[in-house]
Amino acid sequence: EIVAAIQQALAAGPLEGKRIVVTSGPTHEPIDPVRYIANRSSGAQGTAIAEALRDLGAEVVFVTGPATAPRPQGVQVIEVESARDMRAAVMGALPAAAAVFAAAVADWRVTSESGSKIKKQDGRLPVLEFAENPDILREVAHLQDGRPGLVVGFAAETDDVEANAVAKRARKGCDWIVANDVSPETGIMGGTENAVLLVTGDGVEPWPRAGKDVVARRLAERMADALSKG
Amino acid sequence: EIVAAIQQALAAGPLEGKRIVVTSGPTHEPIDPVRYIANRSSGAQGTAIAEALRDLGAEVVFVTGPATAPRPQGVQVIEVESARDMRAAVMGALPAAAAVFAAAVADWRVTSESGSKIKKQDGRLPVLEFAENPDILREVAHLQDGRPGLVVGFAAETDDVEANAVAKRARKGCDWIVANDVSPETGIMGGTENAVLLVTGDGVEPWPRAGKDVVARRLAERMADALSKG
Repeated sequence: EIVAAIQQALAAGPLEGKRIVVTSGPTHEPIDPVRYIANRSSGAQGTAIAEALRDLGAEVVFVTGPATAPRPQGVQVIEVESARDMRAAVMGALPAAAAVFAAAVADWRVTSESGSKIKKQDGRLPVLEFAENPDILREVAHLQDGRPGLVVGFAAETDDVEANAVAKRARKGCDWIVANDVSPETGIMGGTENAVLLVTGDGVEPWPRAGKDVVARRLAERMADALSKG
Repeated sequence: EIVAAIQQALAAGPLEGKRIVVTSGPTHEPIDPVRYIANRSSGAQGTAIAEALRDLGAEVVFVTGPATAPRPQGVQVIEVESARDMRAAVMGALPAAAAVFAAAVADWRVTSESGSKIKKQDGRLPVLEFAENPDILREVAHLQDGRPGLVVGFAAETDDVEANAVAKRARKGCDWIVANDVSPETGIMGGTENAVLLVTGDGVEPWPRAGKDVVARRLAERMADALSKG
């Protein structure tokens, strides 16, 4: 922690004085007091991005769901559980120069949440009712007032990665999409490496498979370039 | 690890030479490649029980779902994900002198599991279909051939803890139930302490609230007593 604080203090990097919000990890959507629906996300890529932005001098606000990855040092950490909690934390952290939405937010929450543990009774199966969660990326990208200058979304896909990512960028109104293939056979989800496509207004760049820390540094440098021109 | 190995080597405890299966942690039941349903369980109580049994000389087989608690040292660890995986691992670990089912096994799995990530489409909500998971405790407690001499189940309840635990012992056919109140306000789930009721054929004993390691040692000692008489 001390080392991280010194590193940050010494950094007079290109992101000095810029506040950047980074979301990371899964969200948990409660079914009852003991059960929940979750997304698989270790938080490793989001944590690496927060660290890389910090190392370039940014003032990072790190909004994380219940992730297994250790929290980054030298940044402000806000712990949340559900998508709605995450939305509130992100809105509270704005305004910011940029926002990176690396969290695997649950698309749906359970509206039939039970205050008591649902009991198993002979032959009866649970019926869960769902509602769409707030779409934090889309909401922030469409802010009329106080939209961050650079809004970066993530797309975790198992099919048609490029086409889905390009469509997602347009649909969400964000500036960039970092897309990856999370099919189990890639070993990316829960692993230490990532292979991404960066989708911007200029086109689609495939980045070589590399450690999540390397991908994070490259993204942070690209963000610093873009913000210095903005 | 070395310390644990030496401790175990030096232990000529009352459970020397006895094989004991301990399950721990949550199970994860997949919805699609990136989503799953889980139970809240850190695995802390099951891990402490495995350690306490090891310290009394038992040969412990520790079957754990994806828990956040560090794995116990000096025992055989088998990592599983779903309830069906856990059942297979437990059956493969028998015969044993005793079995302790501390895992928070999902009662249901999703039979409508999708091989691809379910996409959010305008206004469409997911429909999940469920089936009951195997009831590992009940199955082991009813084994005609090779039933462990002492079968211990857990009951995590939010309401009517004692009545539910007594009924569960009869319904499952196990010897003991360790019951606790996992209502959020108790702070037990995910915490370091536990307050349990031990339900045996002789009645119900409330144990004082104590560290999960203390509860584990007390349970291990009771198990050693019971097995020495059996």
